Formats: sequence, structure tokens, C-alpha cells
Amino acid sequence: MVPHLATALQGPINELEQRILDGMPAIERWFRLEWMEHTPPFYGAVNVRNAGYKLAPIYSDLFPSGWNHLSEEVLPLAVQAGTAAIEKICPEAKNLLIVPSNQATEDAWRKSSYLSNLLQLKRVFQLAGLNVRFGSINPQLTQAQTLVLPDGQSITLEPAVRDPRRLGLANFDPCTILLNQSLDTGVPGILEELHEQNLLPPLHAADASRLNSRFLSAYDEIAKRFAKLIGIDPWLINPLYELLPTLTASNAANVELLGEKVDALLGKIRRKYKDYGIHEQAVVELKCNSRRGKGGVLAISQSAGLGALLAKVEAEHGDDIDLSAGLVLQEAVMTQERVNDRLAQPVVYTMDRYVVGGFYKVQAQADASATWQVDAPLFLPLAFERSSHLPDPEYKPGASVPNRFYMYGVVARLAMLAVSYELEATDPNAEAEGFL
Amino acid sequence: MVPHLATALQGPINELEQRILDGMPAIERWFRLEWMEHTPPFYGAVNVRNAGYKLAPIYSDLFPSGWNHLSEEVLPLAVQAGTAAIEKICPEAKNLLIVPSNQATEDAWRKSSYLSNLLQLKRVFQLAGLNVRFGSINPQLTQAQTLVLPDGQSITLEPAVRDPRRLGLANFDPCTILLNQSLDTGVPGILEELHEQNLLPPLHAADASRLNSRFLSAYDEIAKRFAKLIGIDPWLINPLYELLPTLTASNAANVELLGEKVDALLGKIRRKYKDYGIHEQAVVELKCNSRRGKGGVLAISQSAGLGALLAKVEAEHGDDIDLSAGLVLQEAVMTQERVNDRLAQPVVYTMDRYVVGGFYKVQAQADASATWQVDAPLFLPLAFERSSHLPDPEYKPGASVPNRFYMYGVVARLAMLAVSYELEATDPNAEAEGFL
Repeated sequence: MVPHLATALQGPINELEQRILDGMPAIERWFRLEWMEHTPPFYGAVNVRNAGYKLAPIYSDLFPSGWNHLSEEVLPLAVQAGTAAIEKICPEAKNLLIVPSNQATEDAWRKSSYLSNLLQLKRVFQLAGLNVRFGSINPQLTQAQTLVLPDGQSITLEPAVRDPRRLGLANFDPCTILLNQSLDTGVPGILEELHEQNLLPPLHAADASRLNSRFLSAYDEIAKRFAKLIGIDPWLINPLYELLPTLTASNAANVELLGEKVDALLGKIRRKYKDYGIHEQAVVELKCNSRRGKGGVLAISQSAGLGALLAKVEAEHGDDIDLSAGLVLQEAVMTQERVNDRLAQPVVYTMDRYVVGGFYKVQAQADASATWQVDAPLFLPLAFERSSHLPDPEYKPGASVPNRFYMYGVVARLAMLAVSYELEATDPNAEAEGFL
Repeated sequence: MVPHLATALQGPINELEQRILDGMPAIERWFRLEWMEHTPPFYGAVNVRNAGYKLAPIYSDLFPSGWNHLSEEVLPLAVQAGTAAIEKICPEAKNLLIVPSNQATEDAWRKSSYLSNLLQLKRVFQLAGLNVRFGSINPQLTQAQTLVLPDGQSITLEPAVRDPRRLGLANFDPCTILLNQSLDTGVPGILEELHEQNLLPPLHAADASRLNSRFLSAYDEIAKRFAKLIGIDPWLINPLYELLPTLTASNAANVELLGEKVDALLGKIRRKYKDYGIHEQAVVELKCNSRRGKGGVLAISQSAGLGALLAKVEAEHGDDIDLSAGLVLQEAVMTQERVNDRLAQPVVYTMDRYVVGGFYKVQAQADASATWQVDAPLFLPLAFERSSHLPDPEYKPGASVPNRFYMYGVVARLAMLAVSYELEATDPNAEAEGFL
């Protein structure tokens, strides 16, 4: 079962795939040099959307929780990358504490899938040479809890214990702590001031601290340089966007400004579509700049009626969203990949500088709507078949799953490189060093 | 088709597998720390023999030529390891020159298989971000030659061009040169004094320069420490051996000494067999200490008739072997693995510090002889099925191919670590530094 593109217009994406395959050694060397200068995120997941005429990294998750969805064949890649990453951070590392998500209240399937993810991470890091245990920072967990999964595996979550300088478990002192929760509502005190231990990712990578605008600005620069390297229009891998101040439906001037920005961006997109002979409706998405809280995305295809639309969103979701850092208006890139009749969206997993696997999020119910969102809660994971194979430039573009996966992996790495730039810019320690 | 052990006595090997699986994080950490201190060989292949009651690395090849025999699934591991290795050696590397074997006179099948090996290496290093070309140092190759393989792929071999300081091709200046010939008859002048380029492996890794005794002595130390780490008898992974001076059949005192040594070593082996309840015939192997030339192994199960045996070998093979560095008498470890009725011997491939795959050398003709040698020219490669899967301690020892492969990979890495110790001891530059 291999996803296929639903769109009839496959020209630009195939040309992009060809350029990327032709440029393979140059691309890999370029990444190698970039990673000499910039520290890759410890691990990550990038949602990539393939619209048939362009590709875009839509979401970068620095606390990925779908390791169990990768195919068994690619896990040794994660082990090898994990070994390399640990060696750089703390070569003498013996004990690793994984801090899982606090969300133990989800429905049974989600919880079980998440626990499988934790067990997969444990396997990977055991094989990288670490003793791995789980330390929950959920205050409601007051004693060790062993859970049995439907497949018979069991997992023990223990309450993390904090002393003035270190975080650990009773009789387990880790030199490295791996966060597997996104900290989207803020950083709890129990994780602060841990200067003696390696905290991965660092706290300033918490979703509550990240702004989409910082990522987008770094990605702009990277996409431009990469596009120059392989001789393509950067637009083929980078959606157009615009930053906006905080807007409220009750402020008429604001709504008018939004309307102007929407029209301007739709106009730009339509011109690009015309240049490339793309017969799609231009759509833009409005989302919060801050990644704190639940976020959400509003798809807009015309400026008319924006005031009413905003008022509706505010009434329904006002409490869930953080408008403090303004908004981002961005060209929508709709997924055009299908598995049978279901929309499918590739997710690429990285560890250190390496792509270690991926899967498709496949829509659980058949639905023709291409506006289906990334973050739809229901999906069926579909590990990339043959994603463990090497790309082969001998194949025609679009005809080889490994080649397509390689292309997704390149775009995912561009996104992770942008995250690396972003985290350098927001690193509080780097700033402190500046004063020395 | 999964190889199985022919021997009835599977106890010790299964216990070893269990100890190795139980010790996984500790073992991986131990390797991590060792590789901090010792540089792994750039690439390598280790022939491992599984006698059912013990395991041993029998041969370490620092110029492996069977990359085409690895399964497609594991090649990304080689790419990832190659990327890491290149990054350490020369992060700005752009061009890689592979120096292939001079042997273009072999029969068609062998040649075609070897050329496939070269193409596989090219794929791996292209994906690691290098432009790869082949520079032959065979003086008979005077102009570029393009050969088409039976599968339709083509390969171009060009004559390597030497200037006073560098080796390259017309219009191709590599910063790194990868040797894929074992230099078993010596190092040709064209490869000497290349101080500006990275030569991998270094020239003192040439087979003509290596002595088996140096490897064995390093492996002794490593096997002892590793055995202590996981709580086993080092004999389970290390054959007994004895170094001997040069012997000739015409010297009666020499032959007598050999007889005594043979009896002593057979006695030691028989005591071990008794301790472990092993009902096998004790056998020792006699081979040259020097790895120059073709070598060869003489299996001996009794001291009687040694003079005649030696005389026969001298008459038949005297010109092929180099006795200058003496001989090694070593406990024979016979392979007891079978694919159907054929003897099978695992070969583990490494790149940098990582195990990246393996295959079985399977005897081409059915033959019950367990004395079949490693270096028998005819073999059918059989990629490890599921070798790309992670080991899983939940399986009973002997019941899981990934677990067995993990065990082989551990022993292969112990051998590569011994090579690393050996090459440190023989590094001419390290010696020169000692004088500073």
C-alpha cells in the first residue's frame, strides 16, 4: 500500500525530486558543513505536506511521540544515530531518565500507543548503551505504576524525584534527561535549574517558549540557500507568509488590515500558481505565532466575511489560544497524497543529524476534503515501505518510494536545521556568553 | 532460509547469547568508552565462526570487498556510519577516490561480483555526500575503461595519476583516498608519501605489514576485559594459541618442537572440552604469522606424522607463504552452522564503530566436512535475514535471528577493537611523535 498523489499536476514535484536526487552528494555535503556549525536537535519529527506542485515542512515536533510507528527495519538507524548523539553530549553516560508526557487521561488507544512509543525509545537507548527508566513529573503520580500494554509488554512509570541540584528516581541518578513532553503550557519548576545534568532538548525548546515566526524566518534563509544550491525556486519548498499583530474581531481596523493582508497574500499565491500552470484554489491559513497552548489553524480562501469568521473562532476557541505574540498568515499547502481514498501526510523522524524513518498519517475516515489538518487527532500510522532503502537516481521521479522518502527527508532536515538556528537565537546561555 | 546450528550441544553458545543480551547497555557503553580512546578502522569485515560451544573472530579484513552482498535494508546504516566517519576525518571532504583491487584477471563471476562491490561502495559514499570515482593503480590500466555488469550497471575505472604530492585523476583531486585492495604483497610506491591526503585505511594496515600475533595479543587483552564485564570465561570467545619460530620440515629439532607444542595445545583444548562436556575432536591450525602473500591454514589433530605433513606443504606451497615472522598455532574453531546441508559462516561488516550488516558465506557444494576453511574461494552470500532488526531480550537464546546477529556483531566489534589496538602499536607516525 503505497500512497499516491491525487493531483493530476505532478510536474513540479517530479522536477524537484529529480533535482534533489541529482544533487545528492552536494546536498549531503552541504548538510555536513551546516551541522559542523549548528547543533542538530536531539530528536524530532517533521510533518511534511506534498501538494503535488510543492512540498513544505508544516510542523516540527521536538518531543516526538510516535517512535512506535516507525517500521522495525529502520530502528537500527535510530540506535546508531542515538549512539552518535549520546557520544557527543555525554560519552560516559550510563543512566538516561525519560520524562514522559503527563497526559495519562487520554482514551485507552491513545494512551497505549503513547506507552508503546516510550518502550520503543527505551529499546533504542538501551541499545545505544544506556540504562533507561521513566520518571514522570506528573504530580498525581506518587508511586511507581506498572502498566501492561495490549501486546503484553509492560512499562513502569516512577515519580521523578528532585533534589536541589538533580532530577532522578530513588536509586537512579541519570546524567542525561530526555524530555518526551512538549511543555506547551510552560516549564514546570521541577525541570528548572538543572545545571549538573544534560537536559534534552533544552528548556528553551519547550513549545511554550517557541514562536512560529522565529522558525519561519530561519527556514526562509535556509530554503533560499538550499534552493540556490540545487537550482530551484525556493517557493517549491517554502510557503509564503506574513506576520500580523494580534487581531480581535471587535476591532474593525484590525479586521480590515487582516482583509488587506489576506488579499495581498492570496494575490501572490495566485501569481505563482499562474506561473507554474497550477489550477488550484489559493488558500491561506491563519494561526497563532505562539506555540503555547493548543493553537489551531483557520483556513481562509477570501477576505469577505473575515470579521464574522474571527468572531466565531474567538467565541469557540478563545480560551485555548495565545494571541500574545501575534499571528501568522501563511500560504496553505494541502496534502494531495492518498492511501486508497484517504488523505495521507508524511511524517519524518530525525535523531541528531540523521533521518531515521517515517510514516504516513492516514486519515481514519474517508473524506474528500483536502483541507484536512495536520493535527487531526485520528490517524492510522503507515510506516514507509522500503523507507530503509537507499534512493536510486536511476528511477524516474515519482516512481520510487525510497526516492520520494529521500526528498521528504531532505525537506525535514531543512526544517530541523531551521529549528537549530531558531534555538541558537533563543538560547539563554548563548546570550549570557555574549556578556563575557 | 535461516542457518541453524548442526551441533547437538547448544548450551554454551546459548548461554553466551543470553549473557550478551542481558549485558546490552553495559556492552554498548563499554564500546562507546573504548572508541573514545581508540580510533576504529574506517571499514572492515570480520569472519566469525560459531562452533556451537564457542564463537571466534577468525579473520579481520580491513579492505572488505563484499559490500554488494549486504541486504538492501542495511545499506542506510552504512551511509549513516560513513557520514559520521567522513565527518571526523575530513568534514569538508568533497571528492573521494576509491583505489580498487588490481586483480582484473579473475574469472568473470568473481570480477563481476567485485565490480558490484565497488558500485555499492560508490552509492554509500555518494549518499554520505561525496563525489566518488575509481582510480586504479594497476600499471596495466593506461586509459579509462568502462565495464558493463550483467545487471546493466556500468562502472568506469580510470588510471590513478600521481604527482609529487597527491594522487588523483585527470580533473579530479580527492581529499580522501579509500583503499579497496589489501596490499598483501606490499605497498606500491604510488601510494607512499601522500601526506596531503587522507589515506584510508593507513598504509600500515596493509596486509603485507600485519602480523597475526599482534592482533591475537590485542584480542587476548580485549577478550579478557570483555569476558569480565559480562561474567563469562574468555575462552568462549577466544581460541587458545601459541606463537612459534619459523619451522622447516628439514630441521628435525624444529619438527620435534612443533610436535610438543601441538600436543600441549591439544591437551589444553581437551581439558576445556572436558570442563564443558564437549564431545568434539580437538584440532589445531598452523598458519603463518605474517599476512603477506596467500597464507593458508594447516589443520592438525595429532602430533604424529608432522614432519611428512610439513614437507608436503613446503613442496606444494613453499613459494606462496612468508615464514619470516614465524608461525601461529591456534585452536581450530570449526563452523557448525548450516544452511540446509551446506556449511555456513557469518561475515560481519563494520564501518567506523558501527556494525552495518552481514551475510553468510555458504559452501557452494554440499559437503559434510566441518574443516571447510574460511577462505574457500567458492561461497554463496546469504544476507542476514532481518539483520536490520533490533535484538530483543524477550526471545529465548538461539530462537531469534536478530539476537544471534547482535552476538556476532559484538564479537566482530571486539575484533575490530583489537585491530585498532594493533594499528596504534604499529603506527609509524605515533612512533615519530614519541621522539619529539
